Parts: sequence; C-alpha cells; structure tokens
Amino acid sequence: MPKKSSSTPKRIRVDFEPLGRRVDNDLGDNLLTAAQAAGVQLVSLCGGIGSCDNCRVRLISGELSPPTSEEQDALGTEDLARGYRLACQAIPLSNVKIDIPPESLTAPQRLQIEGLETLIEPDPVVTSFDMQLTPPTLDDLRSDVSRVKQALDDLGIACPVIGLPVLEDLSDILRSQNWTARLVLRGDEVIVGLPLECGLLGLAVDIGTTKLAAYLVDLQNGNTLAKTGRMNPQISYGEDVVSRIAYTINNEGGRKLLQAKLVEAINDMLAELRNQTETEPEQVVEAVVVGNTAMHHLFAGLPVRQLGEAPYVPAVADPMDIPASQIGLMLAPGAYVHLPPNIAGYVGADHVAMLLATDMWDSARTVLALDIGTNTEISLATGGRLLSCSCASGPAFEGAHIHDGMRAAPGAIERVQIFGEEVRVHTVGSQPAVGICGSGILDAIAEMVAAGVLDSRGKLQKDHSLVDEDDGVVEFLIMPAKATGHEHNIIVTQKDVGEIQLAKGAIRAGIEILLEEAGLAHDEIEEFIVAGAFGTYLDIRSAVRVGMFPALPVDRFRQVGNAAGTGARQMLISAERRQATAEIVRRVEYIELTTHPNFTNEFIKAMTF
Amino acid sequence: MPKKSSSTPKRIRVDFEPLGRRVDNDLGDNLLTAAQAAGVQLVSLCGGIGSCDNCRVRLISGELSPPTSEEQDALGTEDLARGYRLACQAIPLSNVKIDIPPESLTAPQRLQIEGLETLIEPDPVVTSFDMQLTPPTLDDLRSDVSRVKQALDDLGIACPVIGLPVLEDLSDILRSQNWTARLVLRGDEVIVGLPLECGLLGLAVDIGTTKLAAYLVDLQNGNTLAKTGRMNPQISYGEDVVSRIAYTINNEGGRKLLQAKLVEAINDMLAELRNQTETEPEQVVEAVVVGNTAMHHLFAGLPVRQLGEAPYVPAVADPMDIPASQIGLMLAPGAYVHLPPNIAGYVGADHVAMLLATDMWDSARTVLALDIGTNTEISLATGGRLLSCSCASGPAFEGAHIHDGMRAAPGAIERVQIFGEEVRVHTVGSQPAVGICGSGILDAIAEMVAAGVLDSRGKLQKDHSLVDEDDGVVEFLIMPAKATGHEHNIIVTQKDVGEIQLAKGAIRAGIEILLEEAGLAHDEIEEFIVAGAFGTYLDIRSAVRVGMFPALPVDRFRQVGNAAGTGARQMLISAERRQATAEIVRRVEYIELTTHPNFTNEFIKAMTF
Repeated sequence: MPKKSSSTPKRIRVDFEPLGRRVDNDLGDNLLTAAQAAGVQLVSLCGGIGSCDNCRVRLISGELSPPTSEEQDALGTEDLARGYRLACQAIPLSNVKIDIPPESLTAPQRLQIEGLETLIEPDPVVTSFDMQLTPPTLDDLRSDVSRVKQALDDLGIACPVIGLPVLEDLSDILRSQNWTARLVLRGDEVIVGLPLECGLLGLAVDIGTTKLAAYLVDLQNGNTLAKTGRMNPQISYGEDVVSRIAYTINNEGGRKLLQAKLVEAINDMLAELRNQTETEPEQVVEAVVVGNTAMHHLFAGLPVRQLGEAPYVPAVADPMDIPASQIGLMLAPGAYVHLPPNIAGYVGADHVAMLLATDMWDSARTVLALDIGTNTEISLATGGRLLSCSCASGPAFEGAHIHDGMRAAPGAIERVQIFGEEVRVHTVGSQPAVGICGSGILDAIAEMVAAGVLDSRGKLQKDHSLVDEDDGVVEFLIMPAKATGHEHNIIVTQKDVGEIQLAKGAIRAGIEILLEEAGLAHDEIEEFIVAGAFGTYLDIRSAVRVGMFPALPVDRFRQVGNAAGTGARQMLISAERRQATAEIVRRVEYIELTTHPNFTNEFIKAMTF
Repeated sequence: MPKKSSSTPKRIRVDFEPLGRRVDNDLGDNLLTAAQAAGVQLVSLCGGIGSCDNCRVRLISGELSPPTSEEQDALGTEDLARGYRLACQAIPLSNVKIDIPPESLTAPQRLQIEGLETLIEPDPVVTSFDMQLTPPTLDDLRSDVSRVKQALDDLGIACPVIGLPVLEDLSDILRSQNWTARLVLRGDEVIVGLPLECGLLGLAVDIGTTKLAAYLVDLQNGNTLAKTGRMNPQISYGEDVVSRIAYTINNEGGRKLLQAKLVEAINDMLAELRNQTETEPEQVVEAVVVGNTAMHHLFAGLPVRQLGEAPYVPAVADPMDIPASQIGLMLAPGAYVHLPPNIAGYVGADHVAMLLATDMWDSARTVLALDIGTNTEISLATGGRLLSCSCASGPAFEGAHIHDGMRAAPGAIERVQIFGEEVRVHTVGSQPAVGICGSGILDAIAEMVAAGVLDSRGKLQKDHSLVDEDDGVVEFLIMPAKATGHEHNIIVTQKDVGEIQLAKGAIRAGIEILLEEAGLAHDEIEEFIVAGAFGTYLDIRSAVRVGMFPALPVDRFRQVGNAAGTGARQMLISAERRQATAEIVRRVEYIELTTHPNFTNEFIKAMTF
C-alpha cells in the first residue's frame, strides 16, 4: 500500500461557487459529501452512486481525482473536457473551487430584481411604420434597399441608414411577408423589418458584480412584461472587480472570455423572458444596460487595466450606443444597446441609474443615497449640489472573508437576535442553516454589541464567548453543529468582527466626508435612500446600531431595492430620461476619498462601535 | 474474394479544382496516378509511398477509399476530419471532386493582377493627426475618450465618433505610446491610434468569380506598394455564380461559409502583401472591394437568393461603407470597406470600376467596353449616353464544359495555329500540354474555320477531322497522346464547338443590341475596350474571325487587363473618384437582354461563323 506523502494536507478546502460557501473537508471525501457536510443542497437522484447526472458540478481551479467510468458514461468526453464532474464521484486532491450550475441546486438563489415602479410617460427612441411595398418586376429592377428607401421617402423619411446586420435578412423577410413590413427606425437607421403591427419590446439589464437582473418591457406602454435574475457568471473568474481586472491582465483573451460569459448569461435571461411572454428576438429593438464602471467596461469589451491602477480612470465615461450585434446580444439585427454615462472609475452607470430612478438628484430636499456592495457608491443632493464618492467597503457583506459567510442563498442566516444566552436566527427560505449572509452578520454584530459580547473597539469579551478548546481562540457561537444538522458550528470570529468594522467604517467615513464637503450635520439629511440587494435585506436599525449609518429617525430611511434596474427601465422607454443622465453627470462633484485629507481620521473614528 | 458489383463503373471521373481539369481514370488508380495521367503536376517528394505529406489534397465531393495508416501518420485526425488526404494513397470509389491546395502544385496558377496605371491625384477619405495628450492624474480624472476628444476639439475637430472596435485597444495603445498617437479619422470617426508619423495604407481588392486580385496602396502618394492574386476559394462550392447561389439556398449556413472563405482568402492575401512591405494590420486604414453583384453580395454577407430568380434584383445597389471588423477583415480596428454601387443583378461594381478606370463613361468618343467571363458585361458610351447590358456567355472560356478544357494554369494550351495538316500550340509557362484554356479554344475554332474544318454552321467536316475508331464520332485532334507525354489525346469535339458558338453568339448579340439601341453601325465604334483576365490573353484577330467581335480595324481594340482592380485603386486613394461612380450609375441605361424583342434573332445570327 503506497504511503501518503507527508506534505499532503489532512484537510482540504472546497469553495462552492456561486454560493460563496467555503468548507474544510477530510481528505478523501468526495464533493457531494463535502457539500452535504456544509449544508449545500445538491440534487442527487441516484443517492450518490454515479448513475444519474444530477449532481453535475464544474471544476474552476485546483485538482480532482481522475474521472471514474461512471462519470465517463454520464458526462461524455466533451463535458469532461470542459471541467464538468459528478460531485458524488470527484474527490479533491488539493484546495478546489467548484462551480455549481443552477440546475444542480435544490433551491434557487435569491436574486434582487424588484425595485421601484416609477410611472414614466413612454417616449421611446424607436419608431415604426407599417408599409406595403411594390414588388420588383422586369420593368422595375430597383434593388430591395432602393425600394425600401423610396417607400420611406414617400412618408417623408429621407435617406435612412440600413446597416449590414439588417441587410443580411431584409430581402428574404420582405419576400416572405409578401412585400409588407413594419419597419422599425432608430433615428435615421432602419433596425429591423417585422410583420405588420408586431409589438416592440425593450430589454433592461442591471449588471451587478454578483447578480444580474433583466426586465422585458413593452416599449409602447412602458409596462414590464417579465423579469428574471441570475448570478453573474464572471464570479468563477474573480469574486470582486479587482480580481476580475487582474484575471484579464494575467490571462490572454481573459477580457473576451469575461465578456462572452456575461453576454451569454444575458442572452439566456432574455430567452427565458421571451419564453414567458412568447415573443421573438427580432421584437426586442432596444436595450439599456447599467453596471458599475468595471462591469460596464467588461460588458462593452473595453479595456479595464487602467481601472486597476491609480488614478483609476474609465476608458469611456460618455454615454454609448453600441450595436447589439457587435457584442453578440441576440436582439433585433440592427438594435442598439444604450449604456448610460459613468461618473468615475468607481462610480458607474448603475449609480447614475439609481440617482435617476429615485429622482433624488433633482430633489429640493437634502437626500443621501447609497448602494452597498464590495464597493459602495454614495451621493448627497443638497441645495442643487450633487456630491458623489465611492468607498472600498470590501466583500464582507457578500459573505466573503467571513468564517461562515455565504451569499443570501437558501439556508443563509439573515436575521439574528440575542436573548441572554439564547441566539435566535432566521434563514433565507426558512431552510436549515448553512452559513451566514451579509444582513445576518450585521444583525449578529449589532446584537453582540448590545449584549456586551463586543466592546466599543470590537474586541470579543471572554466571559460571553465560546472558547475553542483546541487553540484558545475566542469565538461567538451563533448555532452549534448539532442544531445545524451538519457537522460545523456556525460562529462569529474576532477576524469576522474586524472585517465588518472595516466595511462599516469605510461606508460611514464616506457619508461623513460628503456631509463635511456640503457643510451639513447628520440631522439635516431629510431622506436616506438605501438601494441594492444587500440594502434591501439589511435591518436599518442594526446598521444604525453598529454605526454604519448615522442615527436618524427610522422613518427618514427608504429601502428602494434595485433602483438601478428601475433607472434602466426608465431610460429604455424614455429618451427624455436618457438626456437627464447628462445633467446628472454634469452636476456631480466627484470626491476622491483616497486622497481626501480627512478620510483616514473619519475612517478610524467610524470603525468603533 | 468478393465479386465487384456490376453497377460499379469501370471508369471514374476525377475533377481537379481549382484547375478545372477533369479526367476519366481506371478504377483502382489513386489520385496521384490520376493527376499524373492528366498532366496535373502535384508535388510528391517521396515518390508516392505516403511518407511525405507534399501531395495533400482535399476531398470536396464523392467517395474515397478509407485513410491508410500512412495518411493517419502524415495528416493526423484533425486534417483527415477536414477532408485532407494524400493523393498517393487515396483511391476514388465514385466520381470525385478534389481541391488541390496551392502548395501541392509544382507551378503556380496564372493570375490576373496587372492593369492600367492611371495617375490620380490622391484625395483620400482618411486624415491623420499627430498628437501629444496629457496623462490622467488624481486631479484630472477625465476618461481616456474625453481626453482624446478634448485634444481633437483643440484642433477644431468637434465631438468625433469612436467605435467599439477602436475603443477595445485605444486605452492600452495610448499608455504604451506614452500618451502620444497619430489619430486617423474618417469623416468624424476615429478609426485607429497609430504611433506618431506612421504611414497609412489602403487595400484594393477585385473579387472575380474565379480569381482574386489584391493591391496594397500607399494612401499618401497613391503608389501601389505590392500586389498579389489567388484563386477564389468559393470555386470549391460552385464554379459559377448560379451554382454558388444554389449552394447557399441548399445548404444552411452556406452563405456564411462562402463569405468566410472569401474573407479568409483576402486576409491571406493581405498578410502576404504586408509581409512583402513589412507593415502592420493597423496601418491598413481603408479598403475598396469590387466584384460582380453576386460576389459583392457574398462578400458583404447579403442575401443572394433573389439574384437567382427573375427579375434578378440586387439586395443593395447603392454604394456601401461597411466596418471591416463586422465581416472579419483584418484591417485597422475602425477601418471601413467601401463597396462601389452595382448597376443591376448581373452588372456589378466591378463593371462600374472598369468604366471608371478606362474613363470611357465620360469619353467624347464612341467607346464600347466589355469584360468577358461566365457573364459578360458590356457598356457603350456615345454622345453622353451610357448603355449597359449583361449576357450569359457561359463558362466555356474558363475551360468548363470543354472536353479538354482547363483554366489558364501552367500546361494549358493558349495559342493554336493550323498549317495544313500540322497543328502548332503554345502552352502557359511553356509546360507540357495538359489541356486547353479559353484563348486556346478560341484560337483553335478560328483556325478550324479558316482551314475549312468547320463550316459556317459550326459542323465539323469529316474529311478534315479525326474519326474516333470506337464510336464514329467526329473530333478534331489538337495534340495526340504521344506528344502530350500523358495518356490522353487533346481534342476539340463537336460539343466543344457548340459551347463556343453559344458563348460568342451571346456576346456578339449583346454588342449588336447596344449598337441598335444607340442607332450606331459597327464602324462607328471608335474604341473597343476588352478588359479582364480572359480578355487580356485572347487573340483579338481570333475573336473577330469567329465573329465574337465586329470586324473593326485591329488598332481600335484596346486590351486593358484588370481594369476593375485599377478602378478600385483609384477609388481607394480618391474621394472624388468615388463620387464619379454615382454619376456613372445615374447615367447608365440598363438594357435587359432576356426580354429584349431582338435578342433571340441577333443571338441566332451571331452563332454562325
């Protein structure tokens, strides 16, 4: 029997993406066992004997045991070559990162697609004309395009542009529709020929670093017909913006790959939306896509290297209209994708969309609005001024760098209350607890402060905490292994507390600097808008108790959900709303925090409880 | 031993493309033997034992014996899967069509790239500006694009457009060139950022149904720096326009495939031209591509189905400027390809380019110009009028449908003289005779008429002709097998004579109809321009003797070579020349021959000798 090398680790770390759940496992355990131990609920119809392919997962990095004959049969050469494996068969030989396709999870991820519904008068950028053309004869040999142009000219539309992607099919469409067509124009450009009276649709997309949201909109009445969400597939190549930029620098073709993954996911979402509404790709004649500056650049295929180096400038800040066909988005052949302007390298078009949707940029009141993520963008509107900044709040609220952290997937603890010695929790989907997500850790810390488990500097107090018998390290027990149903305690460590202190400190410092620049006191904030996924689920009282937000009356806070998505939908149906973004960007005073003289002081002050 | 099926043919036909040489072979002979018997000179370093891969060929259609182990070794799985075989190993099991890659032929094909050199004042559609930008700092966070636009604005160039393909690299280029750049603009659009003082180049391409010609031009002084030619790779999918249109209708994705093959060949030619001149793809900032209407449409990716059905209208007749990146042409990222206008479904942009290059369209004299091919386009300029038509002259002059016909490749008989019983020939490249090409068959027929071998109706006269002993069919012997060095006689059959009668009759009828429409007699043609590949090599006297051309004094004829290529080069360096094509197209009176009341009469008359 071969002796194991002494350098072989006894425990192996498995990172399950896109859940963001990391667990340490015994050497020799397969991925299904590891997932079950961690509470990650993979589909496994055959009970783990390799005779179904329901527990398909994909290796992102690290080393697994060679494929078994069961895997050969179930997956085939091509899928194996693409990294697919059966979780019940594959055994990690090193620390590994594993991607779980949505169909292999028993419960779907919670996605953030709800947002404000603001009534906007439709004023779309496309127009359409139903027309009957005269077919060619031996006495009338004009080309198909001349025929179309003449017919439009007869309507008073002179010399329109018809791009190559439209021309590729137009001749066949005209003939198959017996020389009738609803011609759709965008400015002076023909973008598609549809059947007469066919409805016109638009697609709005919010590209988050973690999550995607997509909306299919009726361009004639502005109604949202269907919406869906998905994890950003780029997570497999880097959790945050910085690591994805690094990926594109270190991997040739990495930028193209990240773009392709994103476009593929958006095409998938669009196909789902079209299935729900029984509509055709050609009907989708316009799109608006928002995201932070890095997502914006990766989606459009722009360089991102300079976003990773001081002074962090965007390649493009102006609004763009790019042909959907140029990036592979499956819309009408001549459709465009509108990308609203970016403000700075770390304040992107999604923040602009949020400022637009909340109308705060144009408010007569003093309003502060923020969208919390790995990067938190904050804007303050007051007396006609609009100040914006961005702070590196880190991935702690996404569940990363937290001992038992995970994203807000089923089984994530999202609410925590401490009653004396008792800790009560609530999980996403009321599933058995798997780990703890952003709003849960925020609650936990707030409750720990209130219960005296943490002192004002954030130090865990020995008398309240669980002391690990092995290493003497102090940890706070949220839920013991016996209550979770799997083999791990769910705990909050001293390091976890530190991560949250950095995150909330950065956000609060950003708020303070903006107030200072505007010469305002906390109490002068008349409205405090919290947007975005994490912002929807966090408990405002906890955020105030840990000092992340100033202590305003609770009724001044407004949680608006995915306001960026709402802004994107407004721009989709209204040319006037697009023009408003130019005014927003013109008005913004961008405050660079990294070089601001008071930032470090405010940051240190804001780290305490 | 298995008995051969009685339905197995004893002789198998092998069609060697792109030479257009067809031979019948004994069952069991391999492709190398078949090629040698036909005089097709394949490279074979190892002497036909399968130990080198020099005789690589590719199966287009039909069935070959299974690959041998020598082929497995020499070619590998991937090449075998793509249809590559060793000619010395593969044995035809049915009639087959074989593609010979250029590197497998000992002598290169003769290509038509020479043409008129007309001096034109350069007046290019692109301009360039050498500039030094200020790099971004924490105090100047403008985006890269805002920085470029501001710098151009300082030069008085307001708000230029910068397309996605340019943006993909611009940020990295600016940084790698230390914030200097030669910015190249086309109208208000930035198409590339080059190093300071870098030279600007253009590409002119003539897409013939059979042959391609490409020219690399210095846009600043208008000089042609390098030129090259190649066979049109679409030949493998159909010899003529009609069969290629059929291919796109009968094969899903066929249009995309034909486009991809063409673009690939043009990219290959461009790479060769750039190697010769040691230049970079980014320097090639503009292209002009001409071709007949079908080639124009297949190159641009436009539908061609309607070109194959009455009334044969183009999808697009207007001039087009299409982004090179949209069709995969490897020019500067934002470069455009200019496609001049088409006149009709069978009178394309190449004819317009020829009319432009010869200046005949604007001549004060009466000039007739034609370009002979499978389709022959003819124009007549007289007294400010410009009449054009197209006639289906068939592929006989390309060597197709002729018993021993072939293209003008090495070994093709291109000149024939009859002295009593003696027949003297000259071959392309003075190689041993393989077959007979267009100018050779025209000479042969003219000489046969003069020698009384053919009567005025084109019937072969028994007393002058070789009578085949087996079947009693009358044929005229050009060269006996013993003189060719391979096993075939080279002959002219009664059917060959008929094919030439159809071809020359159609061309002459077209000429007659145009003269009739203009009310002119033959002798009033002051200049008779013959353009194109076949037109360069044909003997004008033979063309007159067979009645294809009217009997004008020889000094009124002018053979101008590839005038379409010359016209393309003129349009490449001059915006004024592009505008002239609009005037040409506006002035053309297109005469549809198929419905012209006198065409049939003229055609029948013109078939006689």
